[in-house]
Amino acid sequence: MHNWLLPEYIEDVLPAEAARLESYRRQLLDLFRVHGYQYVVPPMMEYVESLLTGTGHDLDIATFKVVDQLTGRLMGLRADTTPQAARIDAHMLNHEGVSRLCYAGTVLRTTPDGLARTREPLQLGAELYGHAGIESDIEVQRLMVKALQLLGMPTLFVDLSHAAIFASLSHMAQLGVQQEQSLQAALQAKDITLVEQLVANLPGKSRQAFVALAQLNGGIEVLDQARDLLPESAELTQALSELEAVAKALSSEQVTVTFDLSELRGYHYHSGMVFAAYAKGYAGPIALGGRYDEVGAAFGRARPATGFSLDLRGALQALGPAPISQGILAPVATDADLLALISTLRAHGQIVVEALPNTPVNYSELACDRTLQKVDGHWQVVAV
Amino acid sequence: MHNWLLPEYIEDVLPAEAARLESYRRQLLDLFRVHGYQYVVPPMMEYVESLLTGTGHDLDIATFKVVDQLTGRLMGLRADTTPQAARIDAHMLNHEGVSRLCYAGTVLRTTPDGLARTREPLQLGAELYGHAGIESDIEVQRLMVKALQLLGMPTLFVDLSHAAIFASLSHMAQLGVQQEQSLQAALQAKDITLVEQLVANLPGKSRQAFVALAQLNGGIEVLDQARDLLPESAELTQALSELEAVAKALSSEQVTVTFDLSELRGYHYHSGMVFAAYAKGYAGPIALGGRYDEVGAAFGRARPATGFSLDLRGALQALGPAPISQGILAPVATDADLLALISTLRAHGQIVVEALPNTPVNYSELACDRTLQKVDGHWQVVAV
Repeated sequence: MHNWLLPEYIEDVLPAEAARLESYRRQLLDLFRVHGYQYVVPPMMEYVESLLTGTGHDLDIATFKVVDQLTGRLMGLRADTTPQAARIDAHMLNHEGVSRLCYAGTVLRTTPDGLARTREPLQLGAELYGHAGIESDIEVQRLMVKALQLLGMPTLFVDLSHAAIFASLSHMAQLGVQQEQSLQAALQAKDITLVEQLVANLPGKSRQAFVALAQLNGGIEVLDQARDLLPESAELTQALSELEAVAKALSSEQVTVTFDLSELRGYHYHSGMVFAAYAKGYAGPIALGGRYDEVGAAFGRARPATGFSLDLRGALQALGPAPISQGILAPVATDADLLALISTLRAHGQIVVEALPNTPVNYSELACDRTLQKVDGHWQVVAV
Repeated sequence: MHNWLLPEYIEDVLPAEAARLESYRRQLLDLFRVHGYQYVVPPMMEYVESLLTGTGHDLDIATFKVVDQLTGRLMGLRADTTPQAARIDAHMLNHEGVSRLCYAGTVLRTTPDGLARTREPLQLGAELYGHAGIESDIEVQRLMVKALQLLGMPTLFVDLSHAAIFASLSHMAQLGVQQEQSLQAALQAKDITLVEQLVANLPGKSRQAFVALAQLNGGIEVLDQARDLLPESAELTQALSELEAVAKALSSEQVTVTFDLSELRGYHYHSGMVFAAYAKGYAGPIALGGRYDEVGAAFGRARPATGFSLDLRGALQALGPAPISQGILAPVATDADLLALISTLRAHGQIVVEALPNTPVNYSELACDRTLQKVDGHWQVVAV
């Protein structure tokens, strides 16, 4: 075994790519900032109780665990920042009204996941707490669209669903926990044969509803089909009208809205509208989000919540190789004029690399395409 | 147990402090960039062989370990980024000449460490590979001084030492590995009684040299004292003359240079000059660094290397509470003029928070000190 080999689905980010990653990280955080989303930095590790309470089994198995040698308790390395942000909103900020938070940091997963098939996504996200109406769903979805447009993604699709639809059908059919989980997984996988098997013993109305649900995806017409095919309930009616209102609001953005009513995104803490963004040229969703009003309750303080997140590494992978910024190679500096010029150039954001004695000069390795030369008694920047 | 309590020495960074942290993070990375240091992002976890090869036992015990469920092999969560950067230089970049790298990321430690007594420092650093002369030691130390001045630290001390001094005495006294480690620890702790005990059986010359070494700290006069008190060797003479040259070069910066010749910084991978920066008002070192020519060899490619790192969270803790940036609260937006104004304000970097219906307005919670009002038919920013 060579000891410089990295584990599978774990990678270095090298200079050109790292510079681009950092540039987009800053632009996205600045975008969140001017929309009033305050940057927070939750820790990389917490006790598993706080990391995983209120979330699903899938987040648990994605989470690396270590023993805290100070207490002997189990800590987890965050696999998702959303529950941490909810904890900060619930207990650290303790606002009565609305709060908006954003974050940007590494998350770790036991197995590769998502667009980039990585175990170390760079997760950026924005979350809105304290407002239950669809205006906040619309706000975070619009922000997501702006974020993806900033990343240069021209053809965007936003796929909508609503956790209340499955929950309402599941409640009506009086499913047990185990049955509900199996059915949910089968619906996610669009495995209609398995769905049919799992619902075979249910009353006819429920059976037909679940099978119909697996196929309710497409354009806005899906909402009317759902009204026809699914048994009526107050929750269902509200969910469908929320989806319709949000689709209408997003029509002013340059995105195509689609629906997939059996989709239940992410880590199973979502309780309301859920959404995912897709772009031409990407195999999977670039950004995911939704409403998760129940997570705060796990921390003893129920708060409406909605937000989205994306893996910036994954989102950039379709961009192709990044160019590397070129600098100016300065000779070994001895005179004051040269030193002053180097300072001035750097103050203006120019990269100036100082040559070191007794080393070969390799402009390509040093990423320099200019140098400093004395011309007519004055130091000047000269192309090489 | 409340499930929102964090483990000891693990903390959230909340909005005001997080904004300041992000601002300084950017400024420091920009400083490194214009000096030609290229940003890289090594992974949070690697196989322990690559994380720990060529480093000391102290780094091993600071490192959290997890099992890679894809291979069953042991992975470590990085406790220090320096060996990772050396690996990238040695194998990913593979330059013949000089390379300069920098990084900024979370490191995790099993027990609290350093200035901030945290288990989750935000480590920023810069490393220079491929040059063995003191010019590169001087370059990285000057860069460190600029970084600390950028953080607003006025009264700076740079404390110098050299790993070759202890190594030369240890070699001369033919110490065993265990004896060398114990003596090194006693010297680090300045425990002169213990040092005397540990060297009691050595020949007189070595005994006196180690006891003298424990007390060789102070100003530039320490170098002449070392020449008088320590047994002569080629390594010792060179180490002392390197220290003298670097001290002279730093005299042009606004720092006080001190010496502590028994100091052996960090994780015991250093092989040459080592240094630490202190500032008035801080209890411990703010930044640490030195030469570690042997770490690359562990990856099969020996390269001269020198660099420094700092914990940005720790460095900022003496600054006191951060102010929070105030924004502009916009009413629920309906007309096009208002929406256009909001876009323009945001494009100019202003924070504009959009009000949401059916929620109380709390300017303090929303961090807003202005609002948008229609005055004489035009929307205007108005103080509240």
